[in-house]
Amino acid sequence: MPNKAGLRPNNFKKAPYFCGAFLVPKQTAMPSISKKGTSMPSSPIRKLVPFAEQAERNGNKVYYLNIGQPDIQTPLEAQQAIKEADVPVLAYSHSAGFASLREGLSNYYHGKNLPVNTDEIIVTTGGSEALLFTFGSAMDEGDEIIIPEPFYANYNGFATASGVKVVPVEANIENGFALPPVELFEQAITERTKGILICNPGNPTGYLYSKEELEQLKEIVLKHDLFLIADEVYREFTYDGEAHHSILSMEGLENNAIVVDSFSKRYSMCGARIGCLVSKNKDFMATAMKFAQARLSPPTYAQIASEAALKTPQRYFDEVNAEYVERRNVLVEGLNSIDGVFCPKPKGAFYAVASFPVESAEHFAQWLLSEFNHEGKTLMMAPAAGFYAKPELGANQARLAYVLNTEALKDCIAILKAALEVYPHTTR
Amino acid sequence: MPNKAGLRPNNFKKAPYFCGAFLVPKQTAMPSISKKGTSMPSSPIRKLVPFAEQAERNGNKVYYLNIGQPDIQTPLEAQQAIKEADVPVLAYSHSAGFASLREGLSNYYHGKNLPVNTDEIIVTTGGSEALLFTFGSAMDEGDEIIIPEPFYANYNGFATASGVKVVPVEANIENGFALPPVELFEQAITERTKGILICNPGNPTGYLYSKEELEQLKEIVLKHDLFLIADEVYREFTYDGEAHHSILSMEGLENNAIVVDSFSKRYSMCGARIGCLVSKNKDFMATAMKFAQARLSPPTYAQIASEAALKTPQRYFDEVNAEYVERRNVLVEGLNSIDGVFCPKPKGAFYAVASFPVESAEHFAQWLLSEFNHEGKTLMMAPAAGFYAKPELGANQARLAYVLNTEALKDCIAILKAALEVYPHTTR
Repeated sequence: MPNKAGLRPNNFKKAPYFCGAFLVPKQTAMPSISKKGTSMPSSPIRKLVPFAEQAERNGNKVYYLNIGQPDIQTPLEAQQAIKEADVPVLAYSHSAGFASLREGLSNYYHGKNLPVNTDEIIVTTGGSEALLFTFGSAMDEGDEIIIPEPFYANYNGFATASGVKVVPVEANIENGFALPPVELFEQAITERTKGILICNPGNPTGYLYSKEELEQLKEIVLKHDLFLIADEVYREFTYDGEAHHSILSMEGLENNAIVVDSFSKRYSMCGARIGCLVSKNKDFMATAMKFAQARLSPPTYAQIASEAALKTPQRYFDEVNAEYVERRNVLVEGLNSIDGVFCPKPKGAFYAVASFPVESAEHFAQWLLSEFNHEGKTLMMAPAAGFYAKPELGANQARLAYVLNTEALKDCIAILKAALEVYPHTTR
Repeated sequence: MPNKAGLRPNNFKKAPYFCGAFLVPKQTAMPSISKKGTSMPSSPIRKLVPFAEQAERNGNKVYYLNIGQPDIQTPLEAQQAIKEADVPVLAYSHSAGFASLREGLSNYYHGKNLPVNTDEIIVTTGGSEALLFTFGSAMDEGDEIIIPEPFYANYNGFATASGVKVVPVEANIENGFALPPVELFEQAITERTKGILICNPGNPTGYLYSKEELEQLKEIVLKHDLFLIADEVYREFTYDGEAHHSILSMEGLENNAIVVDSFSKRYSMCGARIGCLVSKNKDFMATAMKFAQARLSPPTYAQIASEAALKTPQRYFDEVNAEYVERRNVLVEGLNSIDGVFCPKPKGAFYAVASFPVESAEHFAQWLLSEFNHEGKTLMMAPAAGFYAKPELGANQARLAYVLNTEALKDCIAILKAALEVYPHTTR
């Protein structure tokens, strides 16, 4: 039976306990960060930047395959327009963007046999803002959007910022990230589902959806009254004679189709920050317009450059696409020539997702920067886990952007080949 | 007792009824707009634009006092920098903006005796985006922000987009829209309150907060662990020798103070869409940075122009401010010379809110455009109701931006004087 001493044993360290409450300085009260802000994802593309900086400080050359920033020149038309622009008062523009720019865009779409009128276009600050307006106009806190994974990581960011839940549907590297079976979409649909979001051609996969796959999606969204949101910013980048199919061309989908578009990749002018939101759904566009009015207008200089960019001759795209095809071939064939590496051949965009004979592509990517060099050179790639809602699915995968010239890409293959010979955690 | 025929009377119009179901085209099911989008406010500033367009089509000259788009020239430094910029690849910038631009901004703040370091600045796409990042980083769905009303209408838009509830505290035209009594703030605070937002000097009121008023706010936010968010985009526009007091200069407020700033008004470059978010709260800034990364970067051309604008000589501001003082005097004295009109004299920004001897300033403003002209001229002003969370408080008020030259403003006074002589619904 415990005695009284037993209830408060002599070895009870009461002194530090009681003193502590007085000695520890009062924690200064601070206003707290939002749960939303806390759950905002960090960018998987920029995550390893500090290690790359360290690699450079160590005297290594670093090839940056982690980010979709092409080295392609911005069309001279756009560059020249800015030099020649006379803007004594740099004023707000219309919240939907210059009327002339929207007319130019309408002409561009008509040229692609996509019947888009001027009033079906809102010019946005990058495709990013078009996505933000879409989430805000179509979805409330707790609503759900279905996205085939892997997907562009910032979809998660915009969804989180808008209080929307991303519901992933798994695509597989084995079949080149083709559209997952319709049954998986059907299973993922709940009362809160408001839309399906695809990227076509895809970032990070480079996968180009077939007309049949788009028809399947059309059927699902019509059946369940959902929006079909297509990020088509890589529309111009399709290879091997394959055509791009826009959801804007699909009859009967007028009230469901929302397209996110951008000048960033098409004209290698990522820094302009000009994109657009396109839909024939009048309620949706009127709602998006309220979001557009709140932020006043898209950037004026960039609109001037973008309007001029629309005059870029077809030759530019032909040359750029020929260049990307060559780069893709060097990269993908090179990757597949390495024992244990697998990379499906993308038909569009300028990304490829490859699987590596490693347990953690993130560890491998970081190791490449911090512990390895091949003849004084190394490379940075984006671990693919950040492109999955279920990161474990992409654990051994990485995204490589073929935004560098073929010589650099050949170097990269040599680096990866040499690295996997000595990386201590290969699984091959 | 009804016979069988009675159960289905001969005059029962069954044909149209039953046929209707087949003849009337099936109502196409449509995905629905979000509640958030539905509750997004329309812009009170741009609301009457169709009436102004009609007035112009009717052959009238329209003076636009509704919008804060100054006619002041953008500094030549900024214009020249864009012409001279050589940007062969218009690339993304750092998500926080050019390092050189942030350094320039840090120098600018130090020049104002505001100790702001480069890493305490995120360059944003206009002050608008800085507000959006602030709401996202500090507030969750259903959280509350207290704002003295009348306030910049788009605060409501960004709050709605972020799922945040605006709780107004009433300022009064009688005392020139001074800070409401502390008791009103205390009464408005609930468990969900995350911050207090002020605009200093104010849009739409032009009111410049005194040091004492800011000290009162400091005390409240420290007591309740709230953020104090100050929109200081009109910082340079203070008149009659009055100094601007920034919350960035307040000791002990480092973790609570968030400043929204912009190049738009300061350098008359609204169309650049460059602003910044400033705070010494590291958690807040790290969180805001995730929102910044999601949208990749602010516009590159505009950053080049903004960095150059920082070199604008003081002479430019002296001239601009002298011009605004003259304009303010013409407008405010003119308004007060009209029987039944009252307009407090603002000490900053370039707006004034006046009360009119009418029941509905919105009706009056619309009537000015659609039914009135004075020697072929009329004007557009922004009904103030849209700047109040409780619109009835501003029913007889309008905001006038003195962004036109003094000759135009004198014309505007003559128009208003003549209009109130014949407006059928005056209350004087």
